[in-house]
Amino acid sequence: MATSNNFDLSRCSLNTATIKHATLEEAAMAAAAAGYGAVGLWRDRVQEVGAEKAGRIVRAAGLEVSSLCRGGFFTALDAGRARVAVDDNRRAVDEAAAVGAGELILVVGGLPANPEPGMGASPDAGRPERDLGAARERVSLRLAELVPYAREGGVRLVLEPMHPLFCADRGVVSTLGQALDIAAPFAATEVGVVVDTYHVWWDPQLAASIARAGAEGRLAAFQVCDWVLPLKQDTLNSRGYVGDGYIDFATITGWVRDAGYTGAVETEIFNTDIWARPFTEVVEHVAADYAKYVLPYLD
Amino acid sequence: MATSNNFDLSRCSLNTATIKHATLEEAAMAAAAAGYGAVGLWRDRVQEVGAEKAGRIVRAAGLEVSSLCRGGFFTALDAGRARVAVDDNRRAVDEAAAVGAGELILVVGGLPANPEPGMGASPDAGRPERDLGAARERVSLRLAELVPYAREGGVRLVLEPMHPLFCADRGVVSTLGQALDIAAPFAATEVGVVVDTYHVWWDPQLAASIARAGAEGRLAAFQVCDWVLPLKQDTLNSRGYVGDGYIDFATITGWVRDAGYTGAVETEIFNTDIWARPFTEVVEHVAADYAKYVLPYLD
Repeated sequence: MATSNNFDLSRCSLNTATIKHATLEEAAMAAAAAGYGAVGLWRDRVQEVGAEKAGRIVRAAGLEVSSLCRGGFFTALDAGRARVAVDDNRRAVDEAAAVGAGELILVVGGLPANPEPGMGASPDAGRPERDLGAARERVSLRLAELVPYAREGGVRLVLEPMHPLFCADRGVVSTLGQALDIAAPFAATEVGVVVDTYHVWWDPQLAASIARAGAEGRLAAFQVCDWVLPLKQDTLNSRGYVGDGYIDFATITGWVRDAGYTGAVETEIFNTDIWARPFTEVVEHVAADYAKYVLPYLD
Repeated sequence: MATSNNFDLSRCSLNTATIKHATLEEAAMAAAAAGYGAVGLWRDRVQEVGAEKAGRIVRAAGLEVSSLCRGGFFTALDAGRARVAVDDNRRAVDEAAAVGAGELILVVGGLPANPEPGMGASPDAGRPERDLGAARERVSLRLAELVPYAREGGVRLVLEPMHPLFCADRGVVSTLGQALDIAAPFAATEVGVVVDTYHVWWDPQLAASIARAGAEGRLAAFQVCDWVLPLKQDTLNSRGYVGDGYIDFATITGWVRDAGYTGAVETEIFNTDIWARPFTEVVEHVAADYAKYVLPYLD
């Protein structure tokens, strides 16, 4: 498939979060019309129509599903919240299988709040838990609980290292090397890793870790968006179009290529300004950036 | 020395940036009155009175100088700006020697802007340079140029790894391990590293890197402040009092202690709200936090 500009967009994937306000059908139509080869899906849009129907919509548009976002949030301290997380992750695995996504991306969760003040509460009640090492161990434990269920469903779990900016509140897995260490006890077909440029671009060990991910057969997904400054007050939704910021896509794409990755390249941008633009405009912009900053370095 | 609360504050140091609007004399008086053993100085306050007089003010207050902040900004692309940086760093070394600081802390600089558009300008003119690897190499090269001058002045250069949040615009050295790698070609008496909790708390390799810094004799300074959320729009000035956020000071202080560090613990908080408070209040608050969250884990 190709746009009128004749770029090869067969490996170009649109993560639906980039046009957050589109329905799944609108997103699939827009991606297909622009010549994309795949879409990456968020669970909210999948759940709106049901996972099986969501899969049919994507296939009818002639697209692959590159991934499903997201499960995880493994770091709860109390048994009740941990149980809720396990149940939700099992549903996410089911949805991934039903929608035809071979992979479920996991955002592992940040430092949880301590239980609220009450009878016998600790002096830290209601304040953030600070034991980062323990939170990271809970990620490993709860991942181990989920792996057999995902294996049965034919879904690979994919750990997403997150920028250290988000260590406190969203993801205590902060580097690709750490994600690979957490994945190590499991088969490569069971637990993989995703390289999201926004999260890992700064890492002095990135080249080595990408090569390691490839050599271990765990390089499951490649997501792109740019680091732009100033950050917005809402740091989570402060990402930029590929090419608008500081990230060296030529170099990182080359590392991913050299690691043997042949899958889709998903553009995933959280940005309130971009969400406010017409879907078609965003989809064309993303494709043009892909063609300029990523595609030349993929082969 | 001790406050009326009888905490041992002999290793407690006030970085003057924590009470940014105080003159050097006001800062020294406030720290001495509260029983601190040392102050860490910023160059602006030192330059206001001259480095030799600044040293006399601090000594007259019965305080040590734990460090001088800061030199660095080594990443300029063009020869003109690089020259300006070298000259400024030599002045910083002179000031450190004159003020009686054995150590000059270096913030290495971010990704520079490309030269502005003009005759023969590249397509990237005026946009950020994206070659992070090359910027990091320039840090090593310009550090090597500065080391002989600092050695002659009897000043140790101290690399500060910065939170990856600041990789693009302030510091391309992002982990303690990377700082140690950059320091490796030099003697431990020539180039050390600083552990600033705000910058490194999230690092999954932090325990190992602190131990390595100790074993190599490069652990030159320990600075503390907390990671609090939400970040302010002005991310640089968004730090919190020790104990108000997510950082596990007991654990990190223990690692620093076990690495053999016996120097001062500098509280350095950049926060516009704290800057707006009376100096005495801030200095007492910092001392109380030090006594609660750091001191018990130092010995």
